[in-house]
Amino acid sequence: MTTPFKGIIAYPVTPFQADGSIDAAMLTRLVDRMIDAGVHAIAPLGSTGESAYLDDDEWRLAAETSIAAVARRVPTVVGISELTTQGAIRRARFAERLGADAVMVLPVSYWKLTEAEIMAHYRAIGDAVGLPIMLYNNPATSGIDMSPEFIARICREVPSVTMVKESTGDLQRMHRLDQLTEGRVPFYNGSNPLAFAALNAGAAGWCTAAPNLNAALPLALYEAITAGDLARARAVFRRQLPLLQFIVKIGLPTSVKAGLRLQGIDAGDPRLPLRRLGAEHEATLAAILAALEE
Amino acid sequence: MTTPFKGIIAYPVTPFQADGSIDAAMLTRLVDRMIDAGVHAIAPLGSTGESAYLDDDEWRLAAETSIAAVARRVPTVVGISELTTQGAIRRARFAERLGADAVMVLPVSYWKLTEAEIMAHYRAIGDAVGLPIMLYNNPATSGIDMSPEFIARICREVPSVTMVKESTGDLQRMHRLDQLTEGRVPFYNGSNPLAFAALNAGAAGWCTAAPNLNAALPLALYEAITAGDLARARAVFRRQLPLLQFIVKIGLPTSVKAGLRLQGIDAGDPRLPLRRLGAEHEATLAAILAALEE
Amino acid sequence: MTTPFKGIIAYPVTPFQADGSIDAAMLTRLVDRMIDAGVHAIAPLGSTGESAYLDDDEWRLAAETSIAAVARRVPTVVGISELTTQGAIRRARFAERLGADAVMVLPVSYWKLTEAEIMAHYRAIGDAVGLPIMLYNNPATSGIDMSPEFIARICREVPSVTMVKESTGDLQRMHRLDQLTEGRVPFYNGSNPLAFAALNAGAAGWCTAAPNLNAALPLALYEAITAGDLARARAVFRRQLPLLQFIVKIGLPTSVKAGLRLQGIDAGDPRLPLRRLGAEHEATLAAILAALEE
Amino acid sequence: MTTPFKGIIAYPVTPFQADGSIDAAMLTRLVDRMIDAGVHAIAPLGSTGESAYLDDDEWRLAAETSIAAVARRVPTVVGISELTTQGAIRRARFAERLGADAVMVLPVSYWKLTEAEIMAHYRAIGDAVGLPIMLYNNPATSGIDMSPEFIARICREVPSVTMVKESTGDLQRMHRLDQLTEGRVPFYNGSNPLAFAALNAGAAGWCTAAPNLNAALPLALYEAITAGDLARARAVFRRQLPLLQFIVKIGLPTSVKAGLRLQGIDAGDPRLPLRRLGAEHEATLAAILAALEE
Repeated sequence: MTTPFKGIIAYPVTPFQADGSIDAAMLTRLVDRMIDAGVHAIAPLGSTGESAYLDDDEWRLAAETSIAAVARRVPTVVGISELTTQGAIRRARFAERLGADAVMVLPVSYWKLTEAEIMAHYRAIGDAVGLPIMLYNNPATSGIDMSPEFIARICREVPSVTMVKESTGDLQRMHRLDQLTEGRVPFYNGSNPLAFAALNAGAAGWCTAAPNLNAALPLALYEAITAGDLARARAVFRRQLPLLQFIVKIGLPTSVKAGLRLQGIDAGDPRLPLRRLGAEHEATLAAILAALEE
Repeated sequence: MTTPFKGIIAYPVTPFQADGSIDAAMLTRLVDRMIDAGVHAIAPLGSTGESAYLDDDEWRLAAETSIAAVARRVPTVVGISELTTQGAIRRARFAERLGADAVMVLPVSYWKLTEAEIMAHYRAIGDAVGLPIMLYNNPATSGIDMSPEFIARICREVPSVTMVKESTGDLQRMHRLDQLTEGRVPFYNGSNPLAFAALNAGAAGWCTAAPNLNAALPLALYEAITAGDLARARAVFRRQLPLLQFIVKIGLPTSVKAGLRLQGIDAGDPRLPLRRLGAEHEATLAAILAALEE
Repeated sequence: MTTPFKGIIAYPVTPFQADGSIDAAMLTRLVDRMIDAGVHAIAPLGSTGESAYLDDDEWRLAAETSIAAVARRVPTVVGISELTTQGAIRRARFAERLGADAVMVLPVSYWKLTEAEIMAHYRAIGDAVGLPIMLYNNPATSGIDMSPEFIARICREVPSVTMVKESTGDLQRMHRLDQLTEGRVPFYNGSNPLAFAALNAGAAGWCTAAPNLNAALPLALYEAITAGDLARARAVFRRQLPLLQFIVKIGLPTSVKAGLRLQGIDAGDPRLPLRRLGAEHEATLAAILAALEE
Repeated sequence: MTTPFKGIIAYPVTPFQADGSIDAAMLTRLVDRMIDAGVHAIAPLGSTGESAYLDDDEWRLAAETSIAAVARRVPTVVGISELTTQGAIRRARFAERLGADAVMVLPVSYWKLTEAEIMAHYRAIGDAVGLPIMLYNNPATSGIDMSPEFIARICREVPSVTMVKESTGDLQRMHRLDQLTEGRVPFYNGSNPLAFAALNAGAAGWCTAAPNLNAALPLALYEAITAGDLARARAVFRRQLPLLQFIVKIGLPTSVKAGLRLQGIDAGDPRLPLRRLGAEHEATLAAILAALEE
């Protein structure tokens, strides 16, 4: 387990201007803000970053801007969620040329994929780039669910796949994956409300959009658990849980962009058909954020 | 209910050449073959046509080629399954300019959509083009499930939505939709193994990829049911059911392209990560097709 | 396929007196009423009859009363839904001694059963009694789901299992079962809103609680379909569909007992924790029943 | 939170003799063995104890035997999983007369229950006995799923319900319940493979059948977590996880009785239709148990 990725891996939203184009200056600002706050890595173009909604030129601009903003202060892992293998390879190569430290690959389905098709997808990307790959399992967005047994097999057969991000919210899968890989493949938590449990269970890191709105609390949770201070970890987790529950319930781009606006930062709206958070939910979010300031 | 669409609505696959580019000549041939066999409408760029896997240029070529091949001999409905509202509008406008008779719109999710978001998506497309819209519900591929109650509401609020294609395979939804719209919105069956039941229940048509491989049997089923000949309908349905079950189980592009190859027609392979049908399944398909020739 | 069971198989509720004991006189009256109306068979102690909620003495009284009331005017099939194999055998033997024509056996789970355990359950009952067994698949109440493939295997291996009642509401299972048994095992529809489709698809009968409230419409549907009159079948089904949807949505004992009360027949309330239908739902049911009288 | 129940709450199997009757002497021995090993409470007649499969006389014998065997050395909570409210009250009263410290009540469904019906069920039992009630949520066996919001409401409205056992295996529900009750209602983990996470998250105890086979490891896990020793907790949990996964995958009565036999203790077989563990699985279990002895 020799990965530079551990701790709080922060997922910036992709800010849009009023005309729908990417706001590169704001993206730079968001990345800076999170690194200044102490996050351990940056992951542009994840689910939070509306990766799947961007065309090739936009995706490249967002990748380029993010990686330049990071400027190697922390490692970067770039998200790829493409329907076609060729599209995934094209984006992975681009990320590699830009100097990303890793790519995070989510196999997306329209037609369901067989295990052989998923395996070949990872293998083709692994053959095409020299970067380590973080396998990403998130059936709720991708429509594809990979079992711990199958994930462990991919890790064995595709050497580039050296990290696993699990977002099902099923803790038993992390225990199972850890068993099957005998602790040799670092796993990351992608289900925000499961962060406390996953880090306790040995997750190498927590992939989260929460630092867009509040980086201090996720960092404090990670530090309490690495320090073995269970009581403090419980307390700090309880404190941030309402925020985590809210952003997951609403969806990350919608809720995070609304929260940024409440904090005086205009990152625009999510891309249609996703819409700006409604007034009632916005009031709830305002109350949640205010409580964290106390 | 004044729609030109009824009966067997045939979904051509999108053929690829060895280099992965669209084989327009073969697409023309497939469309011709199905019209010659008597199908009542052509629907390019459906799920069968790998619509979601094509880039804009490819999608336009497939639309253009198909509509030209049909040459107004039967009506055409062009499939649109885009993540973004802007992308869906762009494709719908293109279809309109080419002379399509309707567009079939599937709201695709990465992030789950609220009902307000889905409604706004249909409204925006309806405002952008003058064509009638066939609403398409297919949670297995799109990740979005619209209830009959919600679909009926869309039909009321968005005047362009004049047809509904249901692919959940739940017959009760068709009964329910028919109740809620008081029989005024024609509905179409998109679940192949449910064709017999759906047509009995009053479906205006059956949207199917089966005519790529065999148009005679779907047409015979439709004719038997419109003639009120239940015994013949049962017999002709039983005869084709193994083919319908197989193509649904395997996935339409993969199974239909394999079947075409068995019939001596090279429409290429589905696009990666989808892969050519394996040898064992191919043997099963060969046996199923052979039995239909007897 | 030599079974006496076909057509409308009516499931009486088990009426209770105010003190919670079985109202045998009312049970006799309900059975009489349905036979007088023309139903083709009677099935006491089904899900509708709250079979699972009765102790052994009550169950015997209900079985005895029903079979005596039928008096061989039509065939009877007695429902058995017991957690233990011994309990199921005890009840099956009792039904046999009373002169039942068949038993309908639902394997009920607390702990999930393996296929070997379910097979042994049916085999043990088959060995213990000389009656034909109607296998009953209803995962929503029993917690056990048997695939068409497994059901077909039970039919092959346990000769007493000569009929299958499917209540999943998935029409494709009926097609599949019919394929797998080559049409030799009569199947029955247990999902009320699927009655039209199931009878069209060749179901030998429809197991239903609806005749407690209205026997004429289910009988008319069956007759229209056996006469091959699809238009009339559709019309008569549309007419009764709101009633079928309502009783399924609410649950059969609760809704049927409420409907009987609205018709001036006091069959008591369902057994606690099941409760009498609330006022709002009762008003809906009254409107549905009134519409059927027009 | 003034409950005597915390730590490892052990669920004895109900042993049967060869003729199917309860083996009271063996039940006494199993209870003794677990108390001697240090478990903090005994819970006879849980899911493990095949409570749902016993008739009234058997249930009473098992309750009586267990409570006498405990002899107030540790607290006892008696499991009740009855379809009818009257049956649940009858058993709760019996447990009270015998001196149980609490009853654990699982609402079991045949017909689905509304929230009003479930609430009334708990209220009726609460009114009938003076014992505290542990609400038990286990949709996999009972067919009823209670949300954290609804459970919190029951706790507010039925004063006797003072404890909650959650067996869904969804850790977020425990966090949510803790939020909703502001930490005032102790919750217990009923999902064995979730034990580490649940105790970390603040569960008051772990309800488990594992001590039938090995009490030392669950006790060591509880102690490590209460001592705040996360590293030791992880290690001791990893060690016992294969056993926990196995008994959950197979089902508790079947796997625990097989394990006892491997340890030289004849507790009989589970009651039909449940069957003795097959040879292949038995070999797996033998290996798992042997590894724990090393």
